[in-house]
Amino acid sequence: MPRIAAIEAGYYRVPLETTLSDSTHGDMLAFELNTLRLRDTDGVEGVGYTYTCGRNGAAIGAILQRDLPEQVIGQEADRIEALWQKVWWGQHYGGRGGPTVLAQSALDIALWDLKARRLGQPLWTLLGGHDPRVPCYAGGIDLEFPLDKLLRQTDDNLAKGFRAIKMKVGRKRLAEDVERVRAMREHLGEGFPLMLDANMKWTADEAIRAAHAFQPHDPVWLEEPVIPDDMPGQARVVREGGLPIAAGENLRTLWDFRQLIALGGVTFPEPDVTNCGGVTPFMKIAHLAEAFNLPVTSHGAHDVTVHLLAAVPNRSYLEAHGFGLDRYIAEPLRIEAGCAIASDRPGHGITFDWQGLDTIRA
Amino acid sequence: MPRIAAIEAGYYRVPLETTLSDSTHGDMLAFELNTLRLRDTDGVEGVGYTYTCGRNGAAIGAILQRDLPEQVIGQEADRIEALWQKVWWGQHYGGRGGPTVLAQSALDIALWDLKARRLGQPLWTLLGGHDPRVPCYAGGIDLEFPLDKLLRQTDDNLAKGFRAIKMKVGRKRLAEDVERVRAMREHLGEGFPLMLDANMKWTADEAIRAAHAFQPHDPVWLEEPVIPDDMPGQARVVREGGLPIAAGENLRTLWDFRQLIALGGVTFPEPDVTNCGGVTPFMKIAHLAEAFNLPVTSHGAHDVTVHLLAAVPNRSYLEAHGFGLDRYIAEPLRIEAGCAIASDRPGHGITFDWQGLDTIRA
Ligand SMILES: [Mg+2]
Ligand SMILES: [Mg+2]
Repeated sequence: MPRIAAIEAGYYRVPLETTLSDSTHGDMLAFELNTLRLRDTDGVEGVGYTYTCGRNGAAIGAILQRDLPEQVIGQEADRIEALWQKVWWGQHYGGRGGPTVLAQSALDIALWDLKARRLGQPLWTLLGGHDPRVPCYAGGIDLEFPLDKLLRQTDDNLAKGFRAIKMKVGRKRLAEDVERVRAMREHLGEGFPLMLDANMKWTADEAIRAAHAFQPHDPVWLEEPVIPDDMPGQARVVREGGLPIAAGENLRTLWDFRQLIALGGVTFPEPDVTNCGGVTPFMKIAHLAEAFNLPVTSHGAHDVTVHLLAAVPNRSYLEAHGFGLDRYIAEPLRIEAGCAIASDRPGHGITFDWQGLDTIRA
Repeated sequence: MPRIAAIEAGYYRVPLETTLSDSTHGDMLAFELNTLRLRDTDGVEGVGYTYTCGRNGAAIGAILQRDLPEQVIGQEADRIEALWQKVWWGQHYGGRGGPTVLAQSALDIALWDLKARRLGQPLWTLLGGHDPRVPCYAGGIDLEFPLDKLLRQTDDNLAKGFRAIKMKVGRKRLAEDVERVRAMREHLGEGFPLMLDANMKWTADEAIRAAHAFQPHDPVWLEEPVIPDDMPGQARVVREGGLPIAAGENLRTLWDFRQLIALGGVTFPEPDVTNCGGVTPFMKIAHLAEAFNLPVTSHGAHDVTVHLLAAVPNRSYLEAHGFGLDRYIAEPLRIEAGCAIASDRPGHGITFDWQGLDTIRA
């Protein structure tokens, strides 16, 4: 069995074309990107990455450069489960979340990419092979956009082929949110899939009131109504709010999802492959959702994630989340009539423009 | 109100005199120490620190050096709650645990030290002022010690003034653990406080069986029987195992403790001030425990933590946890007849030997 011969970490600051904002993270001017390239003893390569909305990237880089090599170099490249356990428990005391699990996610993605490239298989067939066409929505980070800019962005997204759209809620006054949602519904027409994302803005009681106020405008889901730490509160929102609830971008482990799902605290589990521990836990979360008769959606990293959702039968929407990375990828994700198409290239099929990335090193 | 004028981070590797081990973390040869020194606009200083058992320290250092200054410099030094929120949410996406919350813990400890020094008060009176004498136990990391070495370490601890002792369990076969616990009980005599620590070794069912096997030897508590992520499982161990359960060194937030306590999953909540977010959340966890009619104990960092337990009425034992740091502290914690004594020096009263630390920079 080939062994891991080399790992190389990169740390970049990807500038945004326009300032983004939501109810919690304030103004975002740039995303941080951490990459990890693996090479095995046969010279086959695998690439993984993770990202943040502006902080902790140096910490992720430090883990990739200082802590991982000693745990990973020389290990058998195909024993991904064994490596996942070794790294998780080897890093557990100071880790168990935060930059450590983001770094581990990049490693795990790279290992799966490597394995799939060795086999000459795209990830989506290797991992299950359900359907390469995955319904997809455009995730806007637009809480502070004036209404006309919000509607213009929406028209741009429709022109790009999107047939589902997410907007932010969680402004100072609920009435402002309701008015913006009403205007979007009018603009999009009845039945067009519209998602709402509150980014943890409310208490459970506030979220239940908000859900009732949004109900006439028929959203597909209301996302992250409360902080991820208030699981019993979110279970109340599911039961009493009258809307489907999506959540998961701020959960960091399979066990977090188990806890939230078992409590009845989520309708659309929404893991992010770059922060839940990688492909290995993402697939387990998707299957856990299936076992609970729930769909699975996703957060971020659409270029990798399209393969994971294309692999499983309970996939719902893929989030397409532009944080400027497409400029540094050879063939960005294809969207056709509302669906993202998992490529047939081996692995996840992402080829980074390393020279371009070199110009934005952090 | 004075503002924060300067912050300075340090990153060290503290060698251990003897290799330590437990059921999860393997052999530990050195601890990592990350320090943070603050100075306010009046020139008053505060010092905080955090540590790991060998990995993630470079990441903590990166956060202290690259992410914190921009969030902290120029802020009002006495508004610790405001700063805590600012940093928690400012770092949340890539943070929410792991190295990020360890770094924030060091910051929060330094802020409280600064505030107390400004006021000329020791932390234990500033935070509540219950009793400066805190019952204390020696926490051994001794799973792989042969029995005679374990008993010798015990005699050393008795000679140092300890009147309570914790040992590791979680060896390959439960029968080995039971025999070691039996020998320790015989050595210590009936009624001597003996704690057992399994470091997340078992499933809930295994833990319940282990608890029953240890029961005849009358331990004060059984610690971390299962992984911190299996809260419902641990609640079963509390209900069915017949022993008090301590846990918390691997919980990273006030909300984690809320969840575990509300589920009935812990008898002795055991936060670590250097990884739960600092003094601010530690005190809230202690008060939360009081609200649920539970005692509070502690993990690690005894020199800071003695003040926090001395502040509250529901304090039980302080863990004294030698990871070699005492060599770099001017006046290490005093133990008298089984009690640690919170000093009357302003702040936490720890003076690091910065020149000594300079020789072990990582
Ligand atoms: Mg979201
Ligand atoms: Mg312990």
